[in-house]
Amino acid sequence: MPKPTYVAVAAVSIDGYIAPIGHPGSSWTSAEDKQFLHEILDSADVIIVGHTTYEIARGPLSKRNCIVLTSKVDSTEQKGKFCLYLNPERADLGETVKHLGYKRVIILGGAQTYTYCLEQGLLDEIYLTIEPIIFGSGLPLFESGKKFVKHFGLSRVKTLNSDTILLHYKKIPE
Amino acid sequence: MPKPTYVAVAAVSIDGYIAPIGHPGSSWTSAEDKQFLHEILDSADVIIVGHTTYEIARGPLSKRNCIVLTSKVDSTEQKGKFCLYLNPERADLGETVKHLGYKRVIILGGAQTYTYCLEQGLLDEIYLTIEPIIFGSGLPLFESGKKFVKHFGLSRVKTLNSDTILLHYKKIPE
Repeated sequence: MPKPTYVAVAAVSIDGYIAPIGHPGSSWTSAEDKQFLHEILDSADVIIVGHTTYEIARGPLSKRNCIVLTSKVDSTEQKGKFCLYLNPERADLGETVKHLGYKRVIILGGAQTYTYCLEQGLLDEIYLTIEPIIFGSGLPLFESGKKFVKHFGLSRVKTLNSDTILLHYKKIPE
Repeated sequence: MPKPTYVAVAAVSIDGYIAPIGHPGSSWTSAEDKQFLHEILDSADVIIVGHTTYEIARGPLSKRNCIVLTSKVDSTEQKGKFCLYLNPERADLGETVKHLGYKRVIILGGAQTYTYCLEQGLLDEIYLTIEPIIFGSGLPLFESGKKFVKHFGLSRVKTLNSDTILLHYKKIPE
Protein backbone atom coordinates (compact mmCIF):
# COMPACT_ATOMS: atom_id res chain seq x y z
CA MET A 1 0.00 0.00 0.00
CA PRO A 2 1.55 3.36 -0.98
CA LYS A 3 2.38 5.74 1.86
CA PRO A 4 0.17 8.80 2.24
CA THR A 5 1.60 12.04 0.83
CA TYR A 6 1.53 15.01 3.20
CA VAL A 7 1.27 18.35 1.40
CA ALA A 8 1.49 21.63 3.33
CA VAL A 9 -0.25 24.59 1.71
CA ALA A 10 0.52 28.07 2.97
CA ALA A 11 0.53 31.70 1.91
CA VAL A 12 3.26 33.93 3.31
CA SER A 13 4.27 37.56 3.15
CA ILE A 14 7.59 38.55 1.55
CA ASP A 15 9.03 38.38 5.05
CA GLY A 16 7.80 34.83 5.58
CA TYR A 17 4.86 35.36 7.91
CA ILE A 18 1.60 33.43 7.52
CA ALA A 19 -0.29 36.21 9.33
CA PRO A 20 0.29 39.40 11.27
CA ILE A 21 0.41 38.86 15.04
CA GLY A 22 -3.10 38.66 16.49
CA HIS A 23 -4.78 38.34 13.08
CA PRO A 24 -4.97 34.68 12.08
CA GLY A 25 -6.71 33.78 8.85
CA SER A 26 -6.09 34.46 5.21
CA SER A 27 -8.20 37.54 4.53
CA TRP A 28 -5.06 39.29 3.26
CA THR A 29 -4.26 36.83 0.46
CA SER A 30 -5.06 37.43 -3.20
CA ALA A 31 -8.17 36.18 -4.99
CA GLU A 32 -5.90 34.03 -7.16
CA ASP A 33 -4.39 32.34 -4.10
CA LYS A 34 -7.86 31.68 -2.70
CA GLN A 35 -8.80 30.10 -6.04
CA PHE A 36 -5.69 27.91 -5.95
CA LEU A 37 -6.47 26.93 -2.36
CA HIS A 38 -9.95 25.76 -3.30
CA GLU A 39 -8.56 23.68 -6.14
CA ILE A 40 -5.95 21.97 -3.99
CA LEU A 41 -8.44 21.34 -1.20
CA ASP A 42 -10.62 19.62 -3.80
CA SER A 43 -7.72 17.25 -4.49
CA ALA A 44 -7.40 16.21 -0.82
CA ASP A 45 -8.57 12.96 0.72
CA VAL A 46 -8.32 14.66 4.08
CA ILE A 47 -7.31 18.08 5.42
CA ILE A 48 -5.31 18.53 8.60
CA VAL A 49 -5.89 21.77 10.49
CA GLY A 50 -5.36 23.21 13.91
CA HIS A 51 -8.38 24.19 15.96
CA THR A 52 -8.05 27.96 15.34
CA THR A 53 -7.76 27.49 11.58
CA TYR A 54 -10.72 25.12 11.65
CA GLU A 55 -12.87 27.68 13.44
CA ILE A 56 -11.91 30.39 10.93
CA ALA A 57 -12.51 28.15 7.90
CA ARG A 58 -15.40 26.11 9.28
CA GLY A 59 -17.70 27.10 6.39
CA PRO A 60 -15.48 26.00 3.49
CA LEU A 61 -14.24 22.97 5.46
CA SER A 62 -17.64 21.72 6.64
CA LYS A 63 -18.19 19.37 3.69
CA ARG A 64 -14.62 18.05 3.52
CA ASN A 65 -12.86 15.31 5.46
CA CYS A 66 -10.89 17.03 8.19
CA ILE A 67 -8.67 16.00 11.04
CA VAL A 68 -8.59 18.82 13.58
CA LEU A 69 -5.56 18.79 15.88
CA THR A 70 -6.70 19.87 19.32
CA SER A 71 -6.07 19.27 22.98
CA LYS A 72 -9.83 19.53 23.58
CA VAL A 73 -10.40 15.76 23.23
CA ASP A 74 -8.84 12.89 25.10
CA SER A 75 -7.61 10.90 22.10
CA THR A 76 -9.84 11.04 19.02
CA GLU A 77 -13.49 11.97 18.69
CA GLN A 78 -15.68 11.98 15.58
CA LYS A 79 -17.58 15.27 15.22
CA GLY A 80 -20.30 14.92 12.61
CA LYS A 81 -19.83 13.13 9.31
CA PHE A 82 -16.61 14.73 8.02
CA CYS A 83 -14.60 15.85 11.02
CA LEU A 84 -12.32 13.96 13.40
CA TYR A 85 -10.86 15.76 16.41
CA LEU A 86 -7.46 14.31 17.30
CA ASN A 87 -5.23 15.12 20.25
CA PRO A 88 -1.69 14.69 18.91
CA GLU A 89 -0.38 14.18 22.46
CA ARG A 90 -2.59 11.13 22.90
CA ALA A 91 -3.21 9.71 19.41
CA ASP A 92 -0.86 8.97 16.51
CA LEU A 93 -1.70 11.21 13.55
CA GLY A 94 0.33 9.22 11.01
CA GLU A 95 -1.18 5.90 12.08
CA THR A 96 -4.69 7.37 12.07
CA VAL A 97 -4.27 8.66 8.51
CA LYS A 98 -2.97 5.25 7.37
CA HIS A 99 -5.72 3.40 9.20
CA LEU A 100 -8.42 5.52 7.57
CA GLY A 101 -6.88 4.82 4.14
CA TYR A 102 -6.23 8.46 3.19
CA LYS A 103 -3.62 8.90 0.46
CA ARG A 104 -3.43 12.64 -0.20
CA VAL A 105 -3.28 14.75 2.92
CA ILE A 106 -3.38 18.54 2.77
CA ILE A 107 -1.98 20.40 5.78
CA LEU A 108 -3.70 23.75 6.00
CA GLY A 109 -2.07 25.21 9.12
CA GLY A 110 -1.72 27.23 11.25
CA ALA A 111 1.84 27.54 12.49
CA GLN A 112 1.53 24.95 15.26
CA THR A 113 0.05 22.39 12.87
CA TYR A 114 2.67 22.99 10.18
CA THR A 115 5.39 22.73 12.83
CA TYR A 116 3.92 19.56 14.34
CA CYS A 117 3.80 17.84 10.95
CA LEU A 118 7.34 18.98 10.12
CA GLU A 119 8.68 17.63 13.41
CA GLN A 120 6.84 14.32 12.97
CA GLY A 121 8.23 13.81 9.47
CA LEU A 122 4.74 14.21 8.01
CA LEU A 123 5.63 16.78 5.36
CA ASP A 124 6.49 15.61 1.86
CA GLU A 125 5.57 18.63 -0.24
CA ILE A 126 4.93 22.34 0.22
CA TYR A 127 2.89 24.73 -1.89
CA LEU A 128 4.04 28.18 -0.83
CA THR A 129 2.28 31.27 -2.11
CA ILE A 130 4.25 34.49 -1.67
CA GLU A 131 2.12 37.62 -1.52
CA PRO A 132 3.77 41.02 -2.23
CA ILE A 133 3.39 42.41 1.25
CA ILE A 134 5.58 42.98 4.29
CA PHE A 135 4.20 42.58 7.78
CA GLY A 136 7.41 43.40 9.67
CA SER A 137 6.41 40.90 12.35
CA GLY A 138 3.96 38.03 12.57
CA LEU A 139 3.43 34.30 12.77
CA PRO A 140 6.20 32.31 11.07
CA LEU A 141 5.41 29.23 8.99
CA PHE A 142 7.33 26.98 11.36
CA GLU A 143 8.28 27.82 14.90
CA SER A 144 10.06 24.77 16.16
CA GLY A 145 12.07 24.64 19.34
CA LYS A 146 14.21 21.99 17.68
CA LYS A 147 17.13 22.55 15.38
CA PHE A 148 17.01 20.76 12.08
CA VAL A 149 17.62 21.30 8.42
CA LYS A 150 15.52 19.70 5.70
CA HIS A 151 16.29 19.93 2.03
CA PHE A 152 13.69 20.26 -0.70
CA GLY A 153 13.67 20.39 -4.46
CA LEU A 154 11.84 23.16 -6.29
CA SER A 155 9.37 21.34 -8.47
CA ARG A 156 7.48 24.24 -10.04
CA VAL A 157 7.20 28.02 -10.05
CA LYS A 158 3.82 29.42 -11.05
CA THR A 159 2.69 32.99 -11.43
CA LEU A 160 -0.73 33.39 -9.79
CA ASN A 161 -1.01 37.05 -10.72
CA SER A 162 1.43 39.81 -11.67
CA ASP A 163 2.67 40.11 -8.07
CA THR A 164 1.96 36.72 -6.50
CA ILE A 165 3.91 33.55 -7.10
CA LEU A 166 3.37 29.97 -6.07
CA LEU A 167 6.32 27.68 -5.33
CA HIS A 168 5.95 23.92 -5.20
CA TYR A 169 8.62 22.05 -3.25
CA LYS A 170 9.17 18.33 -2.76
CA LYS A 171 11.21 16.91 0.07
CA ILE A 172 14.50 15.29 -0.81
CA PRO A 173 14.68 11.90 0.96
CA GLU A 174 17.38 11.83 3.65
CA MET B 1 18.87 65.76 -6.86
CA PRO B 2 17.30 62.28 -7.10
CA LYS B 3 16.63 60.51 -3.81
CA PRO B 4 18.88 57.57 -2.97
CA THR B 5 17.41 54.13 -3.66
CA TYR B 6 17.62 51.66 -0.77
CA VAL B 7 17.79 48.04 -1.89
CA ALA B 8 17.69 45.20 0.63
CA VAL B 9 19.37 41.98 -0.47
CA ALA B 10 18.68 38.80 1.47
CA ALA B 11 18.63 35.04 1.14
CA VAL B 12 16.00 33.14 3.07
CA SER B 13 15.00 29.55 3.67
CA ILE B 14 11.61 28.28 2.46
CA ASP B 15 10.35 29.12 5.92
CA GLY B 16 11.56 32.70 5.69
CA TYR B 17 14.63 32.64 7.93
CA ILE B 18 17.85 34.42 7.02
CA ALA B 19 19.84 32.04 9.23
CA PRO B 20 19.38 29.29 11.79
CA ILE B 21 19.44 30.55 15.39
CA GLY B 22 23.02 31.02 16.58
CA HIS B 23 24.51 30.66 13.10
CA PRO B 24 24.64 34.05 11.41
CA GLY B 25 26.20 34.31 7.98
CA SER B 26 25.42 32.94 4.57
CA SER B 27 27.51 29.77 4.40
CA TRP B 28 24.32 27.82 3.66
CA THR B 29 23.38 29.70 0.48
CA SER B 30 23.99 28.41 -3.05
CA ALA B 31 27.01 29.28 -5.18
CA GLU B 32 24.63 30.97 -7.62
CA ASP B 33 23.27 33.23 -4.88
CA LYS B 34 26.79 34.12 -3.80
CA GLN B 35 27.56 35.04 -7.42
CA PHE B 36 24.44 37.22 -7.60
CA LEU B 37 25.38 38.86 -4.31
CA HIS B 38 28.83 39.81 -5.63
CA GLU B 39 27.28 41.32 -8.75
CA ILE B 40 24.77 43.41 -6.85
CA LEU B 41 27.39 44.58 -4.35
CA ASP B 42 29.43 45.74 -7.34
CA SER B 43 26.47 47.95 -8.32
CA ALA B 44 26.34 49.68 -4.91
CA ASP B 45 27.56 53.16 -4.09
CA VAL B 46 27.49 52.13 -0.45
CA ILE B 47 26.57 49.06 1.56
CA ILE B 48 24.72 49.22 4.87
CA VAL B 49 25.41 46.41 7.32
CA GLY B 50 25.07 45.64 10.97
CA HIS B 51 28.18 45.06 13.02
CA THR B 52 27.85 41.25 13.15
CA THR B 53 27.36 40.99 9.39
CA TYR B 54 30.31 43.30 8.86
CA GLU B 55 32.55 41.14 11.01
CA ILE B 56 31.48 38.00 9.11
CA ALA B 57 31.93 39.60 5.68
CA ARG B 58 34.87 41.84 6.52
CA GLY B 59 37.03 40.32 3.75
CA PRO B 60 34.66 40.85 0.79
CA LEU B 61 33.51 44.21 2.21
CA SER B 62 36.96 45.67 2.96
CA LYS B 63 37.35 47.38 -0.44
CA ARG B 64 33.76 48.67 -0.66
CA ASN B 65 32.09 51.75 0.80
CA CYS B 66 30.27 50.59 3.90
CA ILE B 67 28.17 52.15 6.62
CA VAL B 68 28.24 49.88 9.65
CA LEU B 69 25.33 50.36 12.04
CA THR B 70 26.63 49.94 15.56
CA SER B 71 26.18 51.25 19.07
CA LYS B 72 29.97 51.09 19.51
CA VAL B 73 30.49 54.72 18.42
CA ASP B 74 29.01 57.91 19.79
CA SER B 75 27.64 59.28 16.52
CA THR B 76 29.71 58.55 13.41
CA GLU B 77 33.34 57.55 13.09
CA GLN B 78 35.36 56.94 9.94
CA LYS B 79 37.27 53.63 10.13
CA GLY B 80 39.87 53.46 7.38
CA LYS B 81 39.23 54.58 3.82
CA PHE B 82 35.98 52.78 3.03
CA CYS B 83 34.12 52.27 6.27
CA LEU B 84 31.93 54.59 8.35
CA TYR B 85 30.63 53.43 11.71
CA LEU B 86 27.28 55.03 12.47
CA ASN B 87 25.20 54.80 15.63
CA PRO B 88 21.59 54.98 14.42
CA GLU B 89 20.45 56.16 17.87
CA ARG B 90 22.67 59.24 17.60
CA ALA B 91 23.10 59.95 13.88
CA ASP B 92 20.61 60.14 11.00
CA LEU B 93 21.32 57.37 8.49
CA GLY B 94 19.15 58.84 5.72
CA GLU B 95 20.70 62.30 6.05
CA THR B 96 24.21 60.84 6.15
CA VAL B 97 23.62 58.90 2.93
CA LYS B 98 22.23 62.02 1.23
CA HIS B 99 25.07 64.20 2.53
CA LEU B 100 27.69 61.77 1.20
CA GLY B 101 25.98 61.80 -2.19
CA TYR B 102 25.31 58.07 -2.41
CA LYS B 103 22.58 57.12 -4.88
CA ARG B 104 22.38 53.33 -4.81
CA VAL B 105 22.39 51.85 -1.33
CA ILE B 106 22.51 48.10 -0.75
CA ILE B 107 21.26 46.87 2.63
CA LEU B 108 23.02 43.60 3.40
CA GLY B 109 21.57 42.78 6.82
CA GLY B 110 21.33 41.22 9.33
CA ALA B 111 17.83 41.17 10.75
CA GLN B 112 18.26 44.24 12.97
CA THR B 113 19.61 46.28 10.06
CA TYR B 114 16.86 45.18 7.66
CA THR B 115 14.28 45.97 10.33
CA TYR B 116 15.80 49.36 11.15
CA CYS B 117 15.75 50.40 7.48
CA LEU B 118 12.18 49.13 7.06
CA GLU B 119 10.99 51.10 10.08
CA GLN B 120 12.79 54.26 8.93
CA GLY B 121 11.23 54.08 5.47
CA LEU B 122 14.63 53.40 3.95
CA LEU B 123 13.63 50.38 1.90
CA ASP B 124 12.59 50.84 -1.73
CA GLU B 125 13.41 47.46 -3.25
CA ILE B 126 14.10 43.92 -2.11
CA TYR B 127 16.05 41.16 -3.81
CA LEU B 128 14.99 37.98 -2.06
CA THR B 129 16.69 34.69 -2.81
CA ILE B 130 14.76 31.64 -1.65
CA GLU B 131 16.92 28.58 -1.01
CA PRO B 132 15.24 25.12 -0.96
CA ILE B 133 15.81 24.40 2.70
CA ILE B 134 13.77 24.45 5.90
CA PHE B 135 15.34 25.51 9.18
CA GLY B 136 12.21 25.10 11.34
CA SER B 137 13.34 28.06 13.43
CA GLY B 138 15.77 30.90 12.99
CA LEU B 139 16.27 34.59 12.42
CA PRO B 140 13.42 36.24 10.50
CA LEU B 141 14.11 38.85 7.83
CA PHE B 142 12.29 41.53 9.81
CA GLU B 143 11.51 41.39 13.48
CA SER B 144 9.77 44.63 14.23
CA GLY B 145 7.93 45.37 17.42
CA LYS B 146 5.71 47.65 15.38
CA LYS B 147 2.68 46.70 13.38
CA PHE B 148 2.64 47.82 9.79
CA VAL B 149 1.85 46.60 6.34
CA LYS B 150 3.79 47.62 3.28
CA HIS B 151 2.84 46.69 -0.25
CA PHE B 152 5.31 45.83 -2.98
CA GLY B 153 5.14 44.96 -6.65
CA LEU B 154 6.89 41.88 -7.99
CA SER B 155 9.24 43.24 -10.60
CA ARG B 156 11.07 40.10 -11.67
CA VAL B 157 11.37 36.37 -10.97
CA LYS B 158 14.70 34.79 -11.85
CA THR B 159 15.82 31.20 -11.57
CA LEU B 160 19.32 31.13 -10.06
CA ASN B 161 19.59 27.33 -10.28
CA SER B 162 17.09 24.46 -10.58
CA ASP B 163 16.04 24.87 -6.93
CA THR B 164 16.81 28.50 -6.07
CA ILE B 165 14.83 31.51 -7.17
CA LEU B 166 15.40 35.21 -6.88
CA LEU B 167 12.48 37.63 -6.45
CA HIS B 168 12.83 41.34 -7.08
CA TYR B 169 10.25 43.56 -5.40
CA LYS B 170 9.71 47.30 -5.59
CA LYS B 171 7.80 49.25 -2.99
CA ILE B 172 4.46 50.69 -4.01
CA PRO B 173 4.35 54.35 -2.91
CA GLU B 174 1.78 54.95 -0.16
